[in-house]
Amino acid sequence: MPKPSPLAPDRFPDLPVVPGVRLATGAAEIRYQGRDDVLLVELTPDTAVAGVFTQSTTAAAPVLWCRENVRHGAARGLVVNSGNANAFTGQLGERSVERSVSAVAALFGCSEREVFVASTGVIGEQLPDKKVTDAVGQLQGKLAEGKWEAAARAIMTTDTYPKGCTRTAQIDTQSVVINGITKGSGMIAPNMATMLAFVFTDAAIAAAALQALLTHAVRNSFNCITVDSDTSTSDTLLLFATGKAGGEVIVDARDPRLDDFREQLDALMLDLAHQIVRDGEGATKFVTIKIRGAESDDAARRVGLAIANSPLVKTAIAGGDANWGRIVMAVGKAGEAVDRDRLAIFVGGILLAECGAAVPDYDETPVAAHMRGREIEIAVDLNLGSGQATVWTCDLTHEYIDINADYRS
Amino acid sequence: MPKPSPLAPDRFPDLPVVPGVRLATGAAEIRYQGRDDVLLVELTPDTAVAGVFTQSTTAAAPVLWCRENVRHGAARGLVVNSGNANAFTGQLGERSVERSVSAVAALFGCSEREVFVASTGVIGEQLPDKKVTDAVGQLQGKLAEGKWEAAARAIMTTDTYPKGCTRTAQIDTQSVVINGITKGSGMIAPNMATMLAFVFTDAAIAAAALQALLTHAVRNSFNCITVDSDTSTSDTLLLFATGKAGGEVIVDARDPRLDDFREQLDALMLDLAHQIVRDGEGATKFVTIKIRGAESDDAARRVGLAIANSPLVKTAIAGGDANWGRIVMAVGKAGEAVDRDRLAIFVGGILLAECGAAVPDYDETPVAAHMRGREIEIAVDLNLGSGQATVWTCDLTHEYIDINADYRS
Repeated sequence: MPKPSPLAPDRFPDLPVVPGVRLATGAAEIRYQGRDDVLLVELTPDTAVAGVFTQSTTAAAPVLWCRENVRHGAARGLVVNSGNANAFTGQLGERSVERSVSAVAALFGCSEREVFVASTGVIGEQLPDKKVTDAVGQLQGKLAEGKWEAAARAIMTTDTYPKGCTRTAQIDTQSVVINGITKGSGMIAPNMATMLAFVFTDAAIAAAALQALLTHAVRNSFNCITVDSDTSTSDTLLLFATGKAGGEVIVDARDPRLDDFREQLDALMLDLAHQIVRDGEGATKFVTIKIRGAESDDAARRVGLAIANSPLVKTAIAGGDANWGRIVMAVGKAGEAVDRDRLAIFVGGILLAECGAAVPDYDETPVAAHMRGREIEIAVDLNLGSGQATVWTCDLTHEYIDINADYRS
Repeated sequence: MPKPSPLAPDRFPDLPVVPGVRLATGAAEIRYQGRDDVLLVELTPDTAVAGVFTQSTTAAAPVLWCRENVRHGAARGLVVNSGNANAFTGQLGERSVERSVSAVAALFGCSEREVFVASTGVIGEQLPDKKVTDAVGQLQGKLAEGKWEAAARAIMTTDTYPKGCTRTAQIDTQSVVINGITKGSGMIAPNMATMLAFVFTDAAIAAAALQALLTHAVRNSFNCITVDSDTSTSDTLLLFATGKAGGEVIVDARDPRLDDFREQLDALMLDLAHQIVRDGEGATKFVTIKIRGAESDDAARRVGLAIANSPLVKTAIAGGDANWGRIVMAVGKAGEAVDRDRLAIFVGGILLAECGAAVPDYDETPVAAHMRGREIEIAVDLNLGSGQATVWTCDLTHEYIDINADYRS
């Protein structure tokens, strides 16, 4: 177990029970020894589900399964393993998924369509699914309501700490809880549901409305982070709503009764997304990049991501260097409308460059102090329109090379 | 001066005289001490010129100048400095270019339109152009025909070795020479004329034809390499033809008399592009990525570049790991048409994966031996169409971080 990221939170938060959700974890020794690597979740009947998945054209077998079945909107079980992604495992990999699903369906007496699967770890090796199904068999008796940290730990791969978050929301007169766990550290790039994340609520929300809420929440959270620009084959984000909080099932995502829920879900998703960046492989600095004045919000996001994905910007940040010339370079390669003579660049809130050139004799001292910190803020104003976006990333350090030049062995 | 890249050629090649081209280098101490940092080139009257430039929307002032003036097709002078890119220097930066151009035009008694300028180095600092113009004044008496290695050295920044190449070609009964020098090591990404490169020939070819030949040569050379996916603000590639070899001026790029010239120019450009990859910041391995079976050549190139730009693929190569799962991931993120069950992956000529999964019990021994070498070959067959492309890159190592976390200071 590597040392926790210097950006890790002090501890795993206290996650309350989500009525209708029971969890169990076990050690199947798929790849890792001496730790849990399988998570089984039982969901109460009538649980609604929504999902967002990787846009990779080489998506893993479990993603293909979930993408197909989430359309039915109902969930009773979830099984997740770490250590093997069951990705690029061909038809055999699909059979593996089916056997795992079948075992869970038998256990919970539900349709196979109601079982969701996720795998994370090495790509291209056949999943030893018998280890998974054996573990699942032994986990039934261990299912309980309050094992959130254990669940978050069981799904980790190169993560250095377990990631979870909780929020409560008001729906009408009801108070509902939203818990989320996630994993991810490398092969993190936006434009999809990055990594694995599972969010559970006892709210009573129909699947279609749940999907709309999830898609909205992803846009400004998981789709605005990047560690290394590499898009995983396994990214899976599932949101389950058990309805156990009671009340009328809400069927329209625009229903005003969902306003607080939406806000809390967005906040929880952003928190989880930030936790992934804070555990970015080798990360020593958490970087917030704010773009404004773009022609559109999408244009702003693309400019932000060009900066966030630039190895030269990320290494400069690692070196504590406010090398804003590289920020200009990255803005320039994004391909969006830019007028050099209107561009303004801020680091740590201090204006470094405007009107196409450096601010004459700006004081680098406070900027240098800001760059030595753990939390770096870069802002770019394109001064062209009203489009804006914020994206988050981490620095690129020696540790990233260490981790990734030596992951399989 | 850092230690030369382990992938560097044994020595700088012997470049012959190009009739009509005279060079001089000098030390203006713009940023570097104890080395030449200015290159002045005098071109004989009636020299034709063609150019390709960065597609960055934050292009440097010298790029703006050259892009505008290359349209006139005539060149008499070229001045290049290293240490300062004169990029994102606003209107003042444009005045700097004008003063440098004016000094060279006065020296050679030519129109300012016939003077080309390139700058490479730090972005965002005003170019001390007086140092350049003072140096230019002192260089006139030093102009001579055979200073190619000195010229290649004067334009270096983080490069660890000077880069040059020469070819001879037959045009009709005439033998012509083509010399090229280039620089570049980081901030190297395709889809433009990467970095600085200057190519000189004594062939008699009109500017429009020269431009067509250059654009063709760029497509499969400089536009197929990447070191770190970062696009420079200063990329400039200029091709000068003095016509001193004599013979009728050829005005059509499709003229069959140019067949050998085109072939030799393509070969020279590819050689220069490879030299840049071999000097990629921190590079220890030269990686050739061949894609075939894509829906189009462009699709093949995009898939190849997705692999070549993936930090996870590049770190795996640095670690000597034939981690083909990451190759699958990179193919998947390229967004091009892919059928998992048709995909085949080769490393060092050995088939590792096909039909959507690993080849059962393939022998990893020869693959591991290949990965320990300096020259790595990855091939991907998408088995969908006849599109193909080859791209080149290098590995991503600790040295890249060292160089870039500490470049400005």
